[in-house]
Amino acid sequence: MKRLFAPIALIIAATVTTGCQSLSAPPPVELRGTGDLGLIIERATGSVLVVDHSEHEILGRVEGLGDLSHASVVYSRDARYGYVFGRDGGLTKVDLLTRTVTDRVIQSGNSIGGAISQDGRYVAVSNYEPGGVNIFDSETLDTVAEIPAFYTNAQGEKDQSKTVGLVDAPGNQFVFSLFEAGEIWTVDMYSNPPGINRYQAGKEPYDALITPDGRFYIAGLFGEDGLSMMDLWEPEQGVQTILPDYGKGEQRLPVYKMPHLEGWAIADGYAFVPAVGRHEVLVADMEDWSMVQRIPVQGQPVFVMASPDNRQIWVSFAHPKNDVVQVIDSRTREIIRTLEPGKSVLHMEFTPRGEEVWVSSRDSDRVTVYNTRTLEELATLPAQKPSGIFFTNRAHQLGL
Amino acid sequence: MKRLFAPIALIIAATVTTGCQSLSAPPPVELRGTGDLGLIIERATGSVLVVDHSEHEILGRVEGLGDLSHASVVYSRDARYGYVFGRDGGLTKVDLLTRTVTDRVIQSGNSIGGAISQDGRYVAVSNYEPGGVNIFDSETLDTVAEIPAFYTNAQGEKDQSKTVGLVDAPGNQFVFSLFEAGEIWTVDMYSNPPGINRYQAGKEPYDALITPDGRFYIAGLFGEDGLSMMDLWEPEQGVQTILPDYGKGEQRLPVYKMPHLEGWAIADGYAFVPAVGRHEVLVADMEDWSMVQRIPVQGQPVFVMASPDNRQIWVSFAHPKNDVVQVIDSRTREIIRTLEPGKSVLHMEFTPRGEEVWVSSRDSDRVTVYNTRTLEELATLPAQKPSGIFFTNRAHQLGL
Repeated sequence: MKRLFAPIALIIAATVTTGCQSLSAPPPVELRGTGDLGLIIERATGSVLVVDHSEHEILGRVEGLGDLSHASVVYSRDARYGYVFGRDGGLTKVDLLTRTVTDRVIQSGNSIGGAISQDGRYVAVSNYEPGGVNIFDSETLDTVAEIPAFYTNAQGEKDQSKTVGLVDAPGNQFVFSLFEAGEIWTVDMYSNPPGINRYQAGKEPYDALITPDGRFYIAGLFGEDGLSMMDLWEPEQGVQTILPDYGKGEQRLPVYKMPHLEGWAIADGYAFVPAVGRHEVLVADMEDWSMVQRIPVQGQPVFVMASPDNRQIWVSFAHPKNDVVQVIDSRTREIIRTLEPGKSVLHMEFTPRGEEVWVSSRDSDRVTVYNTRTLEELATLPAQKPSGIFFTNRAHQLGL
Repeated sequence: MKRLFAPIALIIAATVTTGCQSLSAPPPVELRGTGDLGLIIERATGSVLVVDHSEHEILGRVEGLGDLSHASVVYSRDARYGYVFGRDGGLTKVDLLTRTVTDRVIQSGNSIGGAISQDGRYVAVSNYEPGGVNIFDSETLDTVAEIPAFYTNAQGEKDQSKTVGLVDAPGNQFVFSLFEAGEIWTVDMYSNPPGINRYQAGKEPYDALITPDGRFYIAGLFGEDGLSMMDLWEPEQGVQTILPDYGKGEQRLPVYKMPHLEGWAIADGYAFVPAVGRHEVLVADMEDWSMVQRIPVQGQPVFVMASPDNRQIWVSFAHPKNDVVQVIDSRTREIIRTLEPGKSVLHMEFTPRGEEVWVSSRDSDRVTVYNTRTLEELATLPAQKPSGIFFTNRAHQLGL
């Protein structure tokens, strides 16, 4: 494990300015609340923007975070520090107040996201190369546990599995899926060493989500149709298959991108699910996981996200129809608006109570802010190839 | 309207110490995140404690807030400022970082709680005397609107109604009930002046709640049995009566305290409701609002609160059986533990992701912290006649 020296100095690009503030000034270390801050990933440049969503303002840029393609962020329980998971195995702790890198470790060769424990003490990272999950002290980034995720492969040999769909769960647990092993593991962080339970799942889980209350863990499957679901209130029941027709089997078009599962909208007892390879958002009744409706949309959905009040479902799309976002009324299940935030929309993030939504357009180098009630554009912010947008209220939510 | 000069200086009691820090030192104005802070009301002394729930630490005391019996708090969207609603009509803006009073107005003679708008721009206060609702700019505490809540009384005269159950709702609305008028009003803060809609409700609404997604507004009735419910997704449907047997009519014992409605637990499609005057927690199916179960408990419940993962229901009680808290498993609906946090338990607050819960015991002058998984006591903190506990993550939740 390679530890880089911290803190890496803040470097501010002199070229980026917002309406009211030049970013070339040294960062003021101001006393302020951290409840309305966020990070925007600039994937091509290995940098993140620190933003204030009350003022629609870019506060500064932090650089030197490595390969940020497919990067994601979780937050410390005081909402001051972001933990940025890079594709290159880098785990970077960013201080949103000083806008500096507090600490950074290269913890694997290739990673795919992470989670922070319910109590905020542990940060876990899910790895493709060499596989397994590494767990760190959130304060120091010291290693707390390494879970290699061994399984027996088709040749009868012991091997490490890629891990995906890593989330935190109530009871200070982590939950993740093993791609090659086709298993779901739970990790109890109240035990020392962490207590691990293994459950047989479907073939090649490639991503997963946990419902907002932390009860149901649902993994998408690359190797077969259907989804693997665990009820964490009754783990002894093991994994069951839901939506058996869901997946590549139902595709009618080439799949440009497997949809993100973290993007599932769950509203009013129904899950709004991106279809795989079809121009549809699927509606499933969570009572019995029956499919009750298919909502036609303009392209292959990638993110399907409910507003905090569950009143709207915002849908982003895969290439080549990824320059628009569609908004569905969750009650009528009709598209109420098609918006054009820019080229190659990659991510959307609602403000904590949902009055606005921020949308990143990679190839337009901008983030667009909409009012969710009027669907009017409120602001645009310049960003270099922006992808993920993550606000600090995630610090307080299970599974995010 | 009387405006007091701000800021009122911070006064720190030299006698209160925590395990690791004396409160007699001047407050350090430290750079820190505000996501793990909170305020504890000290009702008898007109003061609040600023606490850090990561460290179980009292950071300081802010005094001079007037009559804080039945006080409550909402937070600015940056989670830096608490707006404290006092019983004496005082609205005090407290800076949790500097631990000072930023601003304070006496906005009525007698008030009963308030709310902050979805966008964080407006703070509204619900008044008994002279009645009505006043709305302030959250930044400056300047008056934005006064809504006198006029109605025609039994003598055919125009009169102001006491207002209760004031909450924020999606679409930047406020919703409240009029006690004497028996009405529910919605206030649209996107209109200028605010757009008001009036709906006929049941007799003498005395308190109300809004479901966590901001959809259903439910008012308890003092003047008749049953509850008045509005579906804010379909306001044109008006108010309907639910749980028609709920209320004083079902009481078998003297009612020591009408239960708090904000304390309702809503978990897994069921509402766990404090019975009025009976030693029971009621379970209602939210699909059709039928009563499906009565769970016997040790006293008259006051607060019935679900943990953030909906796995546990914590119940506090009315005098004279108010020295214990009972914990119900939401799945089995059985009491799993009876805890004794101290004398006269008044309030409970879960940490944002629910790994701990803080419980105030007024007559033991302390707050007790429990781990929700082990139900073990983790810490106690000294406080002067503590009542309400409010953590800053409320800044990010609808209806709180």
